Amino acid sequence: MTSLLAPEELEARLRRIGAERYHNNHPFHKLLHSGRLTKGQVQAWALNRYCYQAAIPRKDASIMARLDDPDTRRIWRQRVVDHDGERPGEGGIARWLALTSGLDLERDYVTSTRGALPATRFAVEAYIHFVSERPILEAIASSLTELFSPTIIAERVAGMLANYSFVDDQTLAYFEARLSQAPRDADHALDYVKRHARTAAQQQAVLDALIFKCDVLWAQLDALHHAYVEPRHPPPGAFIPEDMAR
Amino acid sequence: MTSLLAPEELEARLRRIGAERYHNNHPFHKLLHSGRLTKGQVQAWALNRYCYQAAIPRKDASIMARLDDPDTRRIWRQRVVDHDGERPGEGGIARWLALTSGLDLERDYVTSTRGALPATRFAVEAYIHFVSERPILEAIASSLTELFSPTIIAERVAGMLANYSFVDDQTLAYFEARLSQAPRDADHALDYVKRHARTAAQQQAVLDALIFKCDVLWAQLDALHHAYVEPRHPPPGAFIPEDMAR
Repeated sequence: MTSLLAPEELEARLRRIGAERYHNNHPFHKLLHSGRLTKGQVQAWALNRYCYQAAIPRKDASIMARLDDPDTRRIWRQRVVDHDGERPGEGGIARWLALTSGLDLERDYVTSTRGALPATRFAVEAYIHFVSERPILEAIASSLTELFSPTIIAERVAGMLANYSFVDDQTLAYFEARLSQAPRDADHALDYVKRHARTAAQQQAVLDALIFKCDVLWAQLDALHHAYVEPRHPPPGAFIPEDMAR
Repeated sequence: MTSLLAPEELEARLRRIGAERYHNNHPFHKLLHSGRLTKGQVQAWALNRYCYQAAIPRKDASIMARLDDPDTRRIWRQRVVDHDGERPGEGGIARWLALTSGLDLERDYVTSTRGALPATRFAVEAYIHFVSERPILEAIASSLTELFSPTIIAERVAGMLANYSFVDDQTLAYFEARLSQAPRDADHALDYVKRHARTAAQQQAVLDALIFKCDVLWAQLDALHHAYVEPRHPPPGAFIPEDMAR
């Protein structure tokens, strides 16, 4: 890229990256939503995705730690509240654990992350490090995958409720909350990057940050697909679903 | 683990981890060595593995930066010399680039790491971060996969020379050098951890560090297998070999 884009053109390019690279395009998601996974495969997904969920407030705290402006920090703080809750048992992480418990996974096993794929941990830690090491503009831009999450969540909830006897709207409560939280967060972050990316180089860095984040999400599904769908080859030490045991 | 192990028992447990978790057990390596990969798949392996090779001297410099003892630093420094060479065109990274060039990959494309799998980058960066963030004992222990590398290298060189018309001993020069370097390095690191892991907790941390490092290597082959062998589904933006183009 050589010249400065109008903010609307920057937004259009960000949305194009999502259309091409967001993980709703991944075969694993199509399998998940259409009911073609076993309970064990859904367990593996929920167990691994817990690592990501659990890291999100650390990621947001790391952004807050580098924001100079109280107003922006206050807005960003809501993300931490959403995930950690006001008291034990509340918030997004607790709702994710309701999902894993609804799938009959032991809570302590899930929170230990012992059975998670190393590739999941590496991708999640790459995100944490990216956010803490890159300029704050890029850290904020990397959150913009939330622009694309309402669609995938709507598909996911409808598809999973229709297709799996082992989930109900109680276990999927996490996603219900995200349907209102994600657009609010994404609108704020999008407005921030449109206002703060003032050079062509900064705009390119914003686009690259979103590509990076799409890679983080995509790599997690690649690893799940490899371990639990095809060729079903979990790495040493990883979770083995009961319906996959030999 | 509850009680302190004798140094020989610690070594035996480290070797058992290697026997179970080192990446010579991965299906991708069996395919690579037995000549069952296409040239494009071998290119993908070499291209991705470049990311790992290129990061090794950063990893070793990070260890040196935290060693207080000039003697240990001097010994460790040899690893950086081995990889970076004494002058341009020498050393392990240059030899790896001779391999990728021998496989007809453009040098600039390889060194840009543009086509590498995100999962490769995440695994390599996890290693770099582990080494810079964990206690120096664990950082050094994570290098102990080299205890197991002479076997895999011997298998690899013999297998690849016998089975692929597109490699010769010139392109595989990297491995020749490693056959003498790796045992020297591994002996030193093994001696170090046997002497410095003085509590049961430190010994467990040493074992865990080696498991972590085996995960780093294994995850790279999982990602290659997923993208280029089965189901052959490279993530957006990744290298597409000519023999795989649709």
